[in-house]
Amino acid sequence: MITLFLIGIGTGNPDHLTAQAVQALNGADLILIPKKGAAKSDLAEVRELILSRVLTAPVPVATYDVPTRADQTDYLGAVNDWHDAIARVWKDAITPRLPSGGTVALMVWGDPSLYDSTLRIAARLPGVSVKVIPGITSLQVLTAAHAIPLNTLAAPVTITTGRQLRDHGWPEGTTSLAVMLDKGGAFTAIDPANTTIWWGAYVGMPEETLIHGPLAQVSDEILATRARLRAEHGWIMDIYLLRRGGDV
Amino acid sequence: MITLFLIGIGTGNPDHLTAQAVQALNGADLILIPKKGAAKSDLAEVRELILSRVLTAPVPVATYDVPTRADQTDYLGAVNDWHDAIARVWKDAITPRLPSGGTVALMVWGDPSLYDSTLRIAARLPGVSVKVIPGITSLQVLTAAHAIPLNTLAAPVTITTGRQLRDHGWPEGTTSLAVMLDKGGAFTAIDPANTTIWWGAYVGMPEETLIHGPLAQVSDEILATRARLRAEHGWIMDIYLLRRGGDV
Repeated sequence: MITLFLIGIGTGNPDHLTAQAVQALNGADLILIPKKGAAKSDLAEVRELILSRVLTAPVPVATYDVPTRADQTDYLGAVNDWHDAIARVWKDAITPRLPSGGTVALMVWGDPSLYDSTLRIAARLPGVSVKVIPGITSLQVLTAAHAIPLNTLAAPVTITTGRQLRDHGWPEGTTSLAVMLDKGGAFTAIDPANTTIWWGAYVGMPEETLIHGPLAQVSDEILATRARLRAEHGWIMDIYLLRRGGDV
Repeated sequence: MITLFLIGIGTGNPDHLTAQAVQALNGADLILIPKKGAAKSDLAEVRELILSRVLTAPVPVATYDVPTRADQTDYLGAVNDWHDAIARVWKDAITPRLPSGGTVALMVWGDPSLYDSTLRIAARLPGVSVKVIPGITSLQVLTAAHAIPLNTLAAPVTITTGRQLRDHGWPEGTTSLAVMLDKGGAFTAIDPANTTIWWGAYVGMPEETLIHGPLAQVSDEILATRARLRAEHGWIMDIYLLRRGGDV
């Protein structure tokens, strides 16, 4: 019997780890980490930094090659195939090392509940019991960095993706809209009138960069800053909150 | 000059604290905590437990009486007056103890960004610089306990309140709906067809109680369990995720 702990690690700052996460890492029989790739964006080194800081005794580590996602026009189909492939790689990494079972830990960027696929991948592994340790999400780090609430007083908030915002526009009935996984500038697809944006790149990391203001005024600045940072670092992760109406 | 750290502490399990939160508490010149009241629900004792576990050297603590919120028909007006009153109480607790400035820490249930008013109260204090340390929210503890993602694959999610769900029904365009601050059973106001609920009370605490299933089948069980637990413990905090359609 294998117990797989999916452990939220926050957004690159090792101090985002909770005591619960530290305990789960120390209690594991095996820690799975993705192999360092050529791209800095796989952030494998953050996981190694975390382990070097929090493990009180050595824990065996297995690295795995992250399969490449096919660039199909069928987005959901490609993602499903990719998840199947990752599940196979995890199984191949775990089974020979824990033939009679044990506890495996996997560090998940942010929190395993939010725009993350490890839960869906883990569900593909038969006979594996999954436990989740929550972690700080980039959305929380964004609102913390700007010192703003996510929702306005007693009002709802919607969390969505850049793709959804481009394809479906501003969702009905929402004044606060958080956008994740944007390939860049999905906010240009909406009417900027009466809309404020709080934007952040590399939130929680030393490279953290923040911009906020009326969307109509700062939209170009964000696009230019994003392009410059991406060129400078070779990768970028950004996130933003949009609010319609003046209320905070 | 006063710097006020609003520190997310998670949902009652001291192991939800991040290293960043522990550092901020240890670095404070003064820690503000609400006075223990008659009601167990103010949870002041959790804050004391946290301090006893994480402080490496004594830090002065000031307690304050939490003003009572007026039970007006004008909900937002009553909340605004209440926030004004709390801001005055904080100011009176801080000013005599730090006449020449310093760092004040305030522990916030969950994360200061989500259905919490400390940011709005802090904004009422002139000359105070506010810093936020994110914490694990009850919503993350709920999804972790059920080992489910918050969103379905690449789809949006809406976070709302029990009041909003009762008054406005299921929001357009959303398949995943998280409900917080429900005074009880707002899910009975919607059509339960094709809807799954993942419910939790006291999430993250020793009293944690979970129920999930098709809303039509478990709705009564949740209402009965909630009433029983509330009578047993004298207070309750619960939260749930609703999903329409079969996809997870």
